[in-house]
Amino acid sequence: MVIGHECAGVIEKVGSEVKTLVPGDRVALEPGISCWRCDHCKGGRYNLCPEMKFFATPPVHGSLANQVVHPADLCFKLPDNVSLEEGAMCEPLSVGVHACRRANIGPETNVLIMGAGPIGLVTMLAARAFGAPRIVIVDVDDYRLSVAKEIGADNIVKVSTNLQDIAEEVEKIQKAMGTGIDVSFDCAGLNKTMSTALGATCAGGKVCLVGMGHHEMTVPLTPAAVREVDVVGVFRYKNTWPLCLELLRSGKIDVKPLVTHRFGFSQKEVEEAFETSARGGTAIKVMFNL
Amino acid sequence: MVIGHECAGVIEKVGSEVKTLVPGDRVALEPGISCWRCDHCKGGRYNLCPEMKFFATPPVHGSLANQVVHPADLCFKLPDNVSLEEGAMCEPLSVGVHACRRANIGPETNVLIMGAGPIGLVTMLAARAFGAPRIVIVDVDDYRLSVAKEIGADNIVKVSTNLQDIAEEVEKIQKAMGTGIDVSFDCAGLNKTMSTALGATCAGGKVCLVGMGHHEMTVPLTPAAVREVDVVGVFRYKNTWPLCLELLRSGKIDVKPLVTHRFGFSQKEVEEAFETSARGGTAIKVMFNL
Amino acid sequence: MVIGHECAGVIEKVGSEVKTLVPGDRVALEPGISCWRCDHCKGGRYNLCPEMKFFATPPVHGSLANQVVHPADLCFKLPDNVSLEEGAMCEPLSVGVHACRRANIGPETNVLIMGAGPIGLVTMLAARAFGAPRIVIVDVDDYRLSVAKEIGADNIVKVSTNLQDIAEEVEKIQKAMGTGIDVSFDCAGLNKTMSTALGATCAGGKVCLVGMGHHEMTVPLTPAAVREVDVVGVFRYKNTWPLCLELLRSGKIDVKPLVTHRFGFSQKEVEEAFETSARGGTAIKVMFNL
Amino acid sequence: MVIGHECAGVIEKVGSEVKTLVPGDRVALEPGISCWRCDHCKGGRYNLCPEMKFFATPPVHGSLANQVVHPADLCFKLPDNVSLEEGAMCEPLSVGVHACRRANIGPETNVLIMGAGPIGLVTMLAARAFGAPRIVIVDVDDYRLSVAKEIGADNIVKVSTNLQDIAEEVEKIQKAMGTGIDVSFDCAGLNKTMSTALGATCAGGKVCLVGMGHHEMTVPLTPAAVREVDVVGVFRYKNTWPLCLELLRSGKIDVKPLVTHRFGFSQKEVEEAFETSARGGTAIKVMFNL
Repeated sequence: MVIGHECAGVIEKVGSEVKTLVPGDRVALEPGISCWRCDHCKGGRYNLCPEMKFFATPPVHGSLANQVVHPADLCFKLPDNVSLEEGAMCEPLSVGVHACRRANIGPETNVLIMGAGPIGLVTMLAARAFGAPRIVIVDVDDYRLSVAKEIGADNIVKVSTNLQDIAEEVEKIQKAMGTGIDVSFDCAGLNKTMSTALGATCAGGKVCLVGMGHHEMTVPLTPAAVREVDVVGVFRYKNTWPLCLELLRSGKIDVKPLVTHRFGFSQKEVEEAFETSARGGTAIKVMFNL
Repeated sequence: MVIGHECAGVIEKVGSEVKTLVPGDRVALEPGISCWRCDHCKGGRYNLCPEMKFFATPPVHGSLANQVVHPADLCFKLPDNVSLEEGAMCEPLSVGVHACRRANIGPETNVLIMGAGPIGLVTMLAARAFGAPRIVIVDVDDYRLSVAKEIGADNIVKVSTNLQDIAEEVEKIQKAMGTGIDVSFDCAGLNKTMSTALGATCAGGKVCLVGMGHHEMTVPLTPAAVREVDVVGVFRYKNTWPLCLELLRSGKIDVKPLVTHRFGFSQKEVEEAFETSARGGTAIKVMFNL
Repeated sequence: MVIGHECAGVIEKVGSEVKTLVPGDRVALEPGISCWRCDHCKGGRYNLCPEMKFFATPPVHGSLANQVVHPADLCFKLPDNVSLEEGAMCEPLSVGVHACRRANIGPETNVLIMGAGPIGLVTMLAARAFGAPRIVIVDVDDYRLSVAKEIGADNIVKVSTNLQDIAEEVEKIQKAMGTGIDVSFDCAGLNKTMSTALGATCAGGKVCLVGMGHHEMTVPLTPAAVREVDVVGVFRYKNTWPLCLELLRSGKIDVKPLVTHRFGFSQKEVEEAFETSARGGTAIKVMFNL
Repeated sequence: MVIGHECAGVIEKVGSEVKTLVPGDRVALEPGISCWRCDHCKGGRYNLCPEMKFFATPPVHGSLANQVVHPADLCFKLPDNVSLEEGAMCEPLSVGVHACRRANIGPETNVLIMGAGPIGLVTMLAARAFGAPRIVIVDVDDYRLSVAKEIGADNIVKVSTNLQDIAEEVEKIQKAMGTGIDVSFDCAGLNKTMSTALGATCAGGKVCLVGMGHHEMTVPLTPAAVREVDVVGVFRYKNTWPLCLELLRSGKIDVKPLVTHRFGFSQKEVEEAFETSARGGTAIKVMFNL
């Protein structure tokens, strides 16, 4: 099976009824085709469509290919100053944008982000673009934290993987914020990160669970609930491409620092690319270019 | 310390600036006095006020007394056809009303209730008044389920306390509903009830955690989050008395079946009352009358 | 051109991919086919789709015919206890349901309805089903008001067509309500009805403009705006059929009293039907039966 | 009577129970004292409180004085880098902030502003801080438009005062925006500005009526309503000072260009100040300094 669901490309051919695109147009692709018949689709939450056909989700092939056939309304024209690479980055960025929408981020929402991996970083960029006045980001890794700081975190906090440290780290995080934490994004999804997020968030706030580290979770849910700290889930995204492209066009978000490695499409380069990505280290996003 | 925070009574005396009440007025009392200076109070969520003074929450005495002094704006006049006993029931009913508001119950929300104790029952009554078309209630106890059925559940499901049975019980509950479960109220707050609620609720729905059985919880939070099933917390209530009194006045809610035992205020009767309440069995709400 | 957009019928034939319907099924038809490609469709407001194909909206023919071809996902199966006639009534009822959703009607919303014509009446029925505790309805016609009273208004107020009377009538209407008017539905859409609605609604409330009597309106918009009385518009409906059918099935709404006249499909009867409807008088809804 | 309700100053003395302020603290004053007993106050909309005591609203004196007595929770400490003058500007800025909150401005909301006077300008600054990607501002005056352009409008459109020009000007405005207008703020409140705003806003959008030029308005309300363009009112503000101060502190909003004239408190200077303000011309905000 072909994998891949983050991509951009150039239109080669369009169907006879397509009026919005012509060959030669540079486009970013939203990877999911929903049914538009179910209650979720009709109600404005098409990302929850049970009939969704999604790149690289069996039995549907992915987009790591020279050519794909895709509905015109899921191909979004790139502004002149947005590259194909940035276009492909609309996919991970969409995860951050959808999370910020669900958590209702705005100019009054102080944001904590647990995890400075790729999803933590795009969520941070999105939160900033949504107006978050103060963002603190937390990780176990110094390099990741240094990247986060460089691309816009107001403060960073290094933590351990030890469950015993939660109470102390919550205090450290709250101090690093300096004011109430309104929304926390758990971009790791582990017992420890979620427990920390639930404890650190102020009464009436929200914790948005983005990462999927643990399936079953052991977390202090009741003490959070009695402070009306809600837990908000996210699944992929909906209607995010136009906003992502506008944020890239205007320069409110710069995703270029996240693309750390680039490869061609030869057998050798492809193998090297996957090794680089798997190795982690300084690799954030690894990109293929035709 | 004096306990008690569910009460109604007759006004004996009012302050010189009170214009809304006169001696002789029958009133129900909202038990919490908030500061009206903090962000929560000013922002419309006074139930989260950190300076709240609440009956029977140390160092504040409770209302199980012959006389209490209380702010006029927290004393709500009873309609003529609402008894003092029903007035006192506004307090537990408020928990259900606040939960229904937070979960946004309406004529399109099919509701599951985990737990048919007093809080489960008032939440059921509130959900019905908010328009819920179909309500299924779940418990381990036959008597409680029979009461729930009698006062309005569309369907009841008996479950075990065994964690192994969750998957099977979720199926049974979904079958008993016959359509998607939009909102679940966990009125027990145990690992098992919460896991069942998270599993049974449809994509895009909500689980409202009302009960406080377990502090730390081990539950499948991630599979729920990726279906965008949100977890909504509740703490007490706000602005619920006027609505509760209107629902009682109009007959949309009848709380009388929930008052199963009544006692006077003599030493002997008080002791008997607490024993009755502790014994459980057929006791739902035990009421003192002067 | 064929007119008509309120209808129900029996399935004769289905396409090869249709899995939800079989010949013989009794269904109610939602009349609009939207594009599912534009921002409105994708964003959950398909009623605003600029590419909408709608029964009897040129160049699309209407449904006053023996047979129509229609997408399966817009054909909603009738519950056993709901007649074809009631199924056809889902269309006007949908207008009321959509208005109630947009105005956020619930168990705490006291409702004023300006105009007791068919749209005023279905809006009243919908508001009741959404939990409105108290509904006052206003008209110039005694017969209409008597029908409104019979099918559920808490109070009725007869008004004039004279603009001079507005201030006095607002007072009369507020007295008839006996408490703050939270939401007003203007189901006539005239300068006078809208001015009355804006004046009668309490600070922080809403006026929902449903009727379309006047195009340009001369109304006291500024005094309403400074009390944060918002004006909410409605266009048709979206996702209303399932709710309408559930409300009819459960008996929460009874539309049968609104069908006052019935005709067959012969030339003579059709002419008579249109004359009856045009004459007004006691005719509310005039129905054709095959 | 003393007038004035936009002010900042230095704390001279505090009550015995005040813990948040000490003499010498520089503070901005929110001018309204609400009752905290009515439904509006308790429900989070204290700006609608009917018992509000507001600077310079009879019989309450205003703040154009050397000393005022004011509740501590309405005195907001200035960050070190925010001047007293900027602190005083929190009041007009609050109008813009409250309007942006009510109209739900965010990174996807393209904004039209009718009127480039002081209120139009602060609304523009607020909309930008809330993330509005594109802002077009409209006025009859070249100087005002040039200021608007200088402090951040993406595009400006000069219009006439002639009602006949509306259709043509709507087209010009839509062209100047280049994409759908999601929210329009009418900061003039005249028949013409409101008609233009209603016509220019896209289906499903909002028009926020901020200005109060005309009392009764003659506007095409019905054509707007059938496109579900809602009209949102605003009255003063609530909970805006902390956000305003944060926006000033962080530099997201710079109000300094709006203070065009400064005067002392001598009889002669005060007279001159009022003449300057009344004359209009290049005067935007005229400030008194002790």
